[in-house]
Amino acid sequence: MTVKPDNTSSDTRSNSKGQEMWGGRFSAQPDEVMQAINASIGVDQRLAEEDVAGSIAHANMLAAQEIITEADRDAILGGLDKIIEEIRAGEFKFSVALEDIHMNIEARLKELIGEPAGRLHTARSRNDQVATDFRLWVKSSCTARLDQIESLMKALLKQADAHADWVMPGFTHLQTAQPVTVGHHLMAYVEMFSRDFSRFADAIHRMDECPLGAAALAGTGFETNRYITAEALGFSHPMANSLDAVSARDFAIESLSSIAICAQHLSRLAEEIVIWSSAPFSFVRLSDAWSTGSSIMPQKRNPDAAELVRAKTGRANGSLISMLTIMKGLPLAYSKDMQDDKQIVFEAFDSLDLSLQAMTGMIDSITFNKANLATAAAGGFSTATDLADWLVRELNIPFREAHHITGASVKAAEDKGVQLWDLSLEELQAIEPRITKQIFDVLSVDASVASRQSYGGTAPVRVREQIALWKERLL
Amino acid sequence: MTVKPDNTSSDTRSNSKGQEMWGGRFSAQPDEVMQAINASIGVDQRLAEEDVAGSIAHANMLAAQEIITEADRDAILGGLDKIIEEIRAGEFKFSVALEDIHMNIEARLKELIGEPAGRLHTARSRNDQVATDFRLWVKSSCTARLDQIESLMKALLKQADAHADWVMPGFTHLQTAQPVTVGHHLMAYVEMFSRDFSRFADAIHRMDECPLGAAALAGTGFETNRYITAEALGFSHPMANSLDAVSARDFAIESLSSIAICAQHLSRLAEEIVIWSSAPFSFVRLSDAWSTGSSIMPQKRNPDAAELVRAKTGRANGSLISMLTIMKGLPLAYSKDMQDDKQIVFEAFDSLDLSLQAMTGMIDSITFNKANLATAAAGGFSTATDLADWLVRELNIPFREAHHITGASVKAAEDKGVQLWDLSLEELQAIEPRITKQIFDVLSVDASVASRQSYGGTAPVRVREQIALWKERLL
Amino acid sequence: MTVKPDNTSSDTRSNSKGQEMWGGRFSAQPDEVMQAINASIGVDQRLAEEDVAGSIAHANMLAAQEIITEADRDAILGGLDKIIEEIRAGEFKFSVALEDIHMNIEARLKELIGEPAGRLHTARSRNDQVATDFRLWVKSSCTARLDQIESLMKALLKQADAHADWVMPGFTHLQTAQPVTVGHHLMAYVEMFSRDFSRFADAIHRMDECPLGAAALAGTGFETNRYITAEALGFSHPMANSLDAVSARDFAIESLSSIAICAQHLSRLAEEIVIWSSAPFSFVRLSDAWSTGSSIMPQKRNPDAAELVRAKTGRANGSLISMLTIMKGLPLAYSKDMQDDKQIVFEAFDSLDLSLQAMTGMIDSITFNKANLATAAAGGFSTATDLADWLVRELNIPFREAHHITGASVKAAEDKGVQLWDLSLEELQAIEPRITKQIFDVLSVDASVASRQSYGGTAPVRVREQIALWKERLL
Amino acid sequence: MTVKPDNTSSDTRSNSKGQEMWGGRFSAQPDEVMQAINASIGVDQRLAEEDVAGSIAHANMLAAQEIITEADRDAILGGLDKIIEEIRAGEFKFSVALEDIHMNIEARLKELIGEPAGRLHTARSRNDQVATDFRLWVKSSCTARLDQIESLMKALLKQADAHADWVMPGFTHLQTAQPVTVGHHLMAYVEMFSRDFSRFADAIHRMDECPLGAAALAGTGFETNRYITAEALGFSHPMANSLDAVSARDFAIESLSSIAICAQHLSRLAEEIVIWSSAPFSFVRLSDAWSTGSSIMPQKRNPDAAELVRAKTGRANGSLISMLTIMKGLPLAYSKDMQDDKQIVFEAFDSLDLSLQAMTGMIDSITFNKANLATAAAGGFSTATDLADWLVRELNIPFREAHHITGASVKAAEDKGVQLWDLSLEELQAIEPRITKQIFDVLSVDASVASRQSYGGTAPVRVREQIALWKERLL
Repeated sequence: MTVKPDNTSSDTRSNSKGQEMWGGRFSAQPDEVMQAINASIGVDQRLAEEDVAGSIAHANMLAAQEIITEADRDAILGGLDKIIEEIRAGEFKFSVALEDIHMNIEARLKELIGEPAGRLHTARSRNDQVATDFRLWVKSSCTARLDQIESLMKALLKQADAHADWVMPGFTHLQTAQPVTVGHHLMAYVEMFSRDFSRFADAIHRMDECPLGAAALAGTGFETNRYITAEALGFSHPMANSLDAVSARDFAIESLSSIAICAQHLSRLAEEIVIWSSAPFSFVRLSDAWSTGSSIMPQKRNPDAAELVRAKTGRANGSLISMLTIMKGLPLAYSKDMQDDKQIVFEAFDSLDLSLQAMTGMIDSITFNKANLATAAAGGFSTATDLADWLVRELNIPFREAHHITGASVKAAEDKGVQLWDLSLEELQAIEPRITKQIFDVLSVDASVASRQSYGGTAPVRVREQIALWKERLL
Repeated sequence: MTVKPDNTSSDTRSNSKGQEMWGGRFSAQPDEVMQAINASIGVDQRLAEEDVAGSIAHANMLAAQEIITEADRDAILGGLDKIIEEIRAGEFKFSVALEDIHMNIEARLKELIGEPAGRLHTARSRNDQVATDFRLWVKSSCTARLDQIESLMKALLKQADAHADWVMPGFTHLQTAQPVTVGHHLMAYVEMFSRDFSRFADAIHRMDECPLGAAALAGTGFETNRYITAEALGFSHPMANSLDAVSARDFAIESLSSIAICAQHLSRLAEEIVIWSSAPFSFVRLSDAWSTGSSIMPQKRNPDAAELVRAKTGRANGSLISMLTIMKGLPLAYSKDMQDDKQIVFEAFDSLDLSLQAMTGMIDSITFNKANLATAAAGGFSTATDLADWLVRELNIPFREAHHITGASVKAAEDKGVQLWDLSLEELQAIEPRITKQIFDVLSVDASVASRQSYGGTAPVRVREQIALWKERLL
Repeated sequence: MTVKPDNTSSDTRSNSKGQEMWGGRFSAQPDEVMQAINASIGVDQRLAEEDVAGSIAHANMLAAQEIITEADRDAILGGLDKIIEEIRAGEFKFSVALEDIHMNIEARLKELIGEPAGRLHTARSRNDQVATDFRLWVKSSCTARLDQIESLMKALLKQADAHADWVMPGFTHLQTAQPVTVGHHLMAYVEMFSRDFSRFADAIHRMDECPLGAAALAGTGFETNRYITAEALGFSHPMANSLDAVSARDFAIESLSSIAICAQHLSRLAEEIVIWSSAPFSFVRLSDAWSTGSSIMPQKRNPDAAELVRAKTGRANGSLISMLTIMKGLPLAYSKDMQDDKQIVFEAFDSLDLSLQAMTGMIDSITFNKANLATAAAGGFSTATDLADWLVRELNIPFREAHHITGASVKAAEDKGVQLWDLSLEELQAIEPRITKQIFDVLSVDASVASRQSYGGTAPVRVREQIALWKERLL
Repeated sequence: MTVKPDNTSSDTRSNSKGQEMWGGRFSAQPDEVMQAINASIGVDQRLAEEDVAGSIAHANMLAAQEIITEADRDAILGGLDKIIEEIRAGEFKFSVALEDIHMNIEARLKELIGEPAGRLHTARSRNDQVATDFRLWVKSSCTARLDQIESLMKALLKQADAHADWVMPGFTHLQTAQPVTVGHHLMAYVEMFSRDFSRFADAIHRMDECPLGAAALAGTGFETNRYITAEALGFSHPMANSLDAVSARDFAIESLSSIAICAQHLSRLAEEIVIWSSAPFSFVRLSDAWSTGSSIMPQKRNPDAAELVRAKTGRANGSLISMLTIMKGLPLAYSKDMQDDKQIVFEAFDSLDLSLQAMTGMIDSITFNKANLATAAAGGFSTATDLADWLVRELNIPFREAHHITGASVKAAEDKGVQLWDLSLEELQAIEPRITKQIFDVLSVDASVASRQSYGGTAPVRVREQIALWKERLL
């Protein structure tokens, strides 16, 4: 069976030609504001590639199913080829009067190939068309983020490798707690971003089904084959319920959530870069390419990029809430509210795109200041815990007493204005006579760090194992 | 004292000329991504009018204080005149390399008038400049919303006036509870939007102070007069603390909050329009200008505009959260994070702009279906409360027993498939012998509505008093 | 090596005994407000079971690694047994002075078994302890939600099965678009909730690694075996980075996101129930067990439960934003900010718990009104698309012309106040002479629905296939 | 006219006695989950004082209007007195079966005084009752926050006064920009919190109207006087529209927004305290009462309270979004969704309550480290701008050249490892021969700070003026 074109869904929206299309029953033109609030072409023209891809898949399927002729299909494909060329070349004239990307392309197709253009819309509707376009865009954008997260992980890995045994203070409450290694600290972020990676991967997997062919909302009476279009568009299978196909936006919200969590991780690293770049810390120095400067303070390098990455959590959280708000309480199937989904999602993806690239660039070229890190690591009597541990382990002293001895030792050092290891054995023995000179084996920062060899611990030997493991996974 | 140009804040940001400006210490060019994340001209060119206004005020003040010569001032003002003309004519070439609106205008000023251009930046910085531009924009945008809210209130008032005594069901849980009048229902929204109006008015009042002259963050050593610039820009006074002046964004957040609350009110009315337009309700009919139709179902009119207004709560809530997130935990004074404030705020204002106009248009031209409203108002035994009230009031029957009698009466009517007032006196007396024929005075919808004359109640006499009062206030 | 007890992390928080613990250096008592803001026992006592489970696993591991003696382990396990009994019996005295669940249990353990109690804290810290407790709680709560989602899906499936071929209007914009079946509509929700299920499942999988043994932040020098504790607690493996282990909260945020998306789906169904229960729609009737009523309007049944389910999106969105806000920009490792995570997460899970149960109860016992659904399905000329399709398919009429003919037919029916199928063949032929009586085969609602047999379409044959498939999966 | 009791709104909710109340038409008991999701007494018992106050006002008005007898009124007032005593003494038995605070109190009143209890509910409904209770609570809670904000401002003012001329670095991007005074920095927060104060004051003003008497939604037929109850409850007037009175929650959202903005300001100060308390900064030292410590590192003081204050932005943002989400798209009048408003609002107010008190305590007792602040203020060549300004002002050198000279000077100092003022006149003249020894008057930190005397600037003379002004306002 080969048929003339069809338009499963015939709802049309406000434009100057709309009145005719709506059967001439509307006596008044749409209000200008109505047009402004209703048109989406300013936003959804970004879906042009996806829209054309969807139409190619659909035309091929219609021909394969003998719903349209091969000649019509060839005409359609030829026209779509031309259109995508025009769009890529920036020569395509987008018209607000034609309201959205679908109508813009269909209208141009008609100009180019005439009657067969109308046949393309057989057994589909703008409802399943936009759902398909948008899902294709989100899916490929998630995939692009996977690559970027991997690049960031590699940059972190490189720096972790180069600084696997450099010591720095491990903070709690931004107070020195125990020394750790720079490599260990950076590998914590590798772990975080690896989870972000897997969240995007899961989201991709879950959205990997094709809405095309659901038509307006109820499916179609034409003998379509949705497996063909799903496969052609790279989806693993068609969506199983046509109402769900045109109504679902959870795939978009889930990807926004993945963005928000990733942005949150980036904000933590960004905050650290800002703090570490401050004069009192001076732990790191951003490269020229990732700093801004001052003509009168040439030593200055502002961590603008880190601040902007930190700020992007704002957009991420906002976009997520926007979509959750929009979708709240919408009855099935398509409601016009959903039209507002695209700009919000585009902004969030763009924002993470820039953030990941900027963070990768910063990390890749950041310089750590070994001396400052080491000095800070030694401050705050950061090895007091090691002293207490030694007392417990070697002298079998109950921990409460061990803590008391340690506190007294710290006080002694503090009063003298020195580090714990600068106390003499006599001074320590004045506090606790059983202390031996072996104590000095655990008081230094390096000894402390080297000793923490439990799985996942900060000892360089453990950190290097993790680095090796991640190299295998990533490189 | 008249001086050569000065640049209080000399932090410059990444662009190809930046390296020289930063004293030639940066060996590498900024990364491309750094430029992309850092540039704001794509967004802040919208502040062009405000930026020029700020510069005019600043130049006049500098001359009045004899910090620059009158000749320089005249040159500057002439150049700025030309620039604003170019911008309005769409002839101004915005350059990404020049990063933001301030540098774009300053660079063009230099091209136009040469050396005096540099003197304009004496005793100011981009930090106070952007704070001023942005505050001016937000303040005038809030003012524009005031007008729009007033227009919406007038449209509601007009319809309330025309339908002051038309009955409709008053719902709780979307279940018929008691009859009310259409006018009363619409006047509830007048009250809501009047509070939105006053929220914007309060926000305007609170932000009505001028940051200009705070310079980078600490004020300046030049003998400026900030009262002059504040007044010239329509602010009531200068901000009293220069650190606060460049760090504060609560004025923007407060306006976003006012937007979100107003959008929430709009979403409630929009939801009602969507439900009322549904076939089963058929309470209202949107005008042609505010509907979309269908070529094959010419009777159809989709409430797209109402749905889009409802959807705008998404943007509003998201923008509010975005800004609250961005500002969380930022130390004083300026942090680059704040650069992301403008796009977020622009979007929210634009969104409310369209929503208010669309809602005004819809309300202004909406048609109510008297018969359907009346039928629905009479359904669900909506005057059962009136029956119970009568028993209590006239027969002195305790309310628990009155409720029991009413329930039995409703059941009798329901069993018979009639309304309460369709029961005969005998039938009612079979339930409660003391009932008299006066009961029929309170059982009808009109009687019910007319009786609720407490202040704020739905009786037409009360509704008309409120309408009269609001006419005085608004017209 | 067997040692005396140790306390890897010795940071203690404000309480009346705190001063001594902090080495007697604090001259002043903590402020009362400080205590109020700092204490968490009011919230985290809910983690008692998890805390004890973690301690049992830890004690066993310490003994297996010969870090503590078997005698000590037995004493510890005995004490913990007693404690969990006390807690379950409601006899445990929680003390605010002891600040949190960990210290409350440790203190009670000391009362019960004396010195060995102190050995339990060897090679761990409150930082990894709370991370473990919380992760255990979130993981098991996610698992509980899986079961509840499945129950809801079964209830939907049951109703879909019973109403696989009942017709109802398929809405777009809450306007009648095309008829669908009730079964098809309900199966759309089965699809949605199945994705919610898989989101929770993915979240569980991702959080399935154990933080215990990370100690304060850097790991420990004791020869622990974290694989033993991970396995004992039902985790697949220990977390690979100790800093990450104590700093990560993305597992909580991801679960909040899954909650928010599921709540959004629930809100859509809840909205439909509210609208469908309204008098004008009267599509459904909630059972007695899931309605509230009125003493004077006994016919009334308010959909309170549906409204409350709809409202829970508020809590869900809020909790998600709360956690994203809290974690923004926190440097590694533990910051006290994280203490606020638990109440927020508890509330969100509790909220979804109730919502899922309530929705399952409502759906399980809801009654559909066949006549009202059918009448509504036939309204709005819902088969106009079928007429146009027929013209295209059978008469090879171009779709634009087909739409014109359809519009004219609808207008004719509307003018006559009848349905499309009530027009006579003559009346239709007056519009388009080629129309034959076969047209009446497609004009009825049942014919329309039966024809939409594309994969995922609303035809009962397709719907029943989906139901069969889901029965296999779920039952 | 004096009447027997009445119950304007008779909707009752699910409880074991509900079935009878609903006219015996419900054959099944409510589901247990239905009861759990429906009951609010666990939350709204906190409104007990407001509920009783509302009832007292209502009873007095009913008697004044002769709707109930004076004897009944006296009985009611006596009973309410007893109830409030019981509640305050913790002896009142709250019953979940009675669902909410209103029914709990009404039931107890009946127990205490018998029949007159029922008359209290004449001409009111739970809809206007809860709206009144909640508004009273929010209003008085906002007022309490006013006092707390004022206390915080006084604490800041005290510290600003004591450190009006202590220098510290003024940061942009957390990089040293120009020196400021500690007093100036603290006064920036006084400005911020003063705006928070005025936001709460505006919110109070806007919500200062009384919903009581709106009854279920439509007003009442009884001859009530709502001005009497409004005045008795401390409201300036009754709300003008009964539908609005029971439907409006913008007063709650506005207060949540004020909380969120205030929390955001607090988070900025909290972040600064955390950073300033870090070892590398060591700008401040929290008092014993506002720190937590460590038994083995007795020198340690963790800024837990500051971190917890910072974290409270999470709750604040979340609560705001929760309420905005809940209210989205709710049709008038009362929907059950609104029941979820109270817990959310309570949490947010409690959270700000603690935060304000904690911050006030911290600020009040914080110690600044003069030497560290001064050293940091002098770092980063923070007076480079002053050097450039001097060149422009005194030598009439164009600013571009002035910047070049300054940059060269900074480089010279940096290369030598000294401050700008440590360069000799010869060294400076080697860069720019026209430089005179007067240059040294502007190079020092103190000179820089003293020179910035523009309105709002950091010069101690300006700062002290602001302090004096605020003392007048606050003390």
